[in-house]
Amino acid sequence: MPFAILLAFTLSVGRKVMHVPGKLYGLGLGPGDPELLTVKASRILGRVSVVAVPKGGPDRPSLALEVAAPYLRPGQEILELLLPMTRDRDQRQEAWAGSAREIARRLEQGLDVAFLTLGDLFTYSTYAYLREHLQQLMPGLAVENVPGVTSFAAAASAAAWPLAEGDETLAVVPGSIAVSAMASLLDCFSTVVILKAAGRYREWVELLRRKGLEQEAVLVSRCGFPDEICSRDLDEWVDREMSYFSLILARGAKRQ
Amino acid sequence: MPFAILLAFTLSVGRKVMHVPGKLYGLGLGPGDPELLTVKASRILGRVSVVAVPKGGPDRPSLALEVAAPYLRPGQEILELLLPMTRDRDQRQEAWAGSAREIARRLEQGLDVAFLTLGDLFTYSTYAYLREHLQQLMPGLAVENVPGVTSFAAAASAAAWPLAEGDETLAVVPGSIAVSAMASLLDCFSTVVILKAAGRYREWVELLRRKGLEQEAVLVSRCGFPDEICSRDLDEWVDREMSYFSLILARGAKRQ
Repeated sequence: MPFAILLAFTLSVGRKVMHVPGKLYGLGLGPGDPELLTVKASRILGRVSVVAVPKGGPDRPSLALEVAAPYLRPGQEILELLLPMTRDRDQRQEAWAGSAREIARRLEQGLDVAFLTLGDLFTYSTYAYLREHLQQLMPGLAVENVPGVTSFAAAASAAAWPLAEGDETLAVVPGSIAVSAMASLLDCFSTVVILKAAGRYREWVELLRRKGLEQEAVLVSRCGFPDEICSRDLDEWVDREMSYFSLILARGAKRQ
Repeated sequence: MPFAILLAFTLSVGRKVMHVPGKLYGLGLGPGDPELLTVKASRILGRVSVVAVPKGGPDRPSLALEVAAPYLRPGQEILELLLPMTRDRDQRQEAWAGSAREIARRLEQGLDVAFLTLGDLFTYSTYAYLREHLQQLMPGLAVENVPGVTSFAAAASAAAWPLAEGDETLAVVPGSIAVSAMASLLDCFSTVVILKAAGRYREWVELLRRKGLEQEAVLVSRCGFPDEICSRDLDEWVDREMSYFSLILARGAKRQ
């Protein structure tokens, strides 16, 4: 047997014994409408052996799994990862490390794993932490990242509300930002997007009113779901219960 | 003939004579990889009678059309709209008005029209102008907006570079912004994305170096195309020719 063929044969047998590790796919699923998945994410979803989904609590259904459902096929393992939303850093790290080990075990068996996240993969997602943990556990791991449509792009389409044009500027901030900082952003930017706006919704509406910017803002809640709210009357929603998935699109003073 | 049936018959004949207008679809195509189209955009592309694509010049191929090509079917009209990139406001308005009339003529004939734009539909796209012109020409026009993956989300996935996490803030600005304004943003934001960074690339690299932020920045050029560049060595590209579709992802001082 010529040497090259012998070598190839040995390597191939060796690979089988060692289990060539699987590939990790990070998939951004878009805002919630299964049709807003990319063609690439839908193709990968139908092909991987393991579909890993984050869950906020043991009894809470995984929203990501619901969005991905139309593209799954029988026989795939659904690996639910309990990743509680906590501000405790140690608790978070522990949850991530545990989830990474669960995924690593499958990858080491040669199984391909897709990790699902709503919206885009690297825009306020938990994927980056997980990926870091996994790359520490398995240096050289093959990874493919698939971006997704962000909640704020989807909200802009739902409200027919341009986020930015020409020379304009766009700021995207979480609802945890200080009111004073938000006030400055509204002075300097053409558009400000406030994500997770439900928790302090009244503060944002008051700030916008104080600045005379309330007329040019939109509330978008549960974008892409059947119970989507898309309202230019922000006041109307101040005393009502609001989904965690709520954001405000606001024109800054520069745009007025 | 009972009155209700007679009425329905008259209305239906009336609609045929009047040509029920077609529907306008705005489609964000994502950054350039045909697989990064949404399932929804791909479905609509295969169904509409007219596919309208913006062109920067008469001899320039339409990039949007190349990205959409795998989803088109024989017999669809490809309507190329000449929309020169000019800073002359009147010239731009005239080009938009003319394009809107071309599209309106098809809609009035009862044909569905999809207008294509790279990236997301409402993020630095030309769609908002066109839609406004069309809604003036045809009040009550049925419109469906389909968001897309933005260039910066795709760039973040290509570079495995988180745009924002947790309480962080994100600014997205065009390359036309003043250097002093950019310097302030780098002080205040966790992440700053500079779109269309090619024109003044040297200035951005110098600014980042002056602020000690050069090590944590990435240049991404022609993201999703076969000749994609994704480089953490920004200096290397200062004296080289660069595509119009180039952006810089930069960590601000707050993140360091």
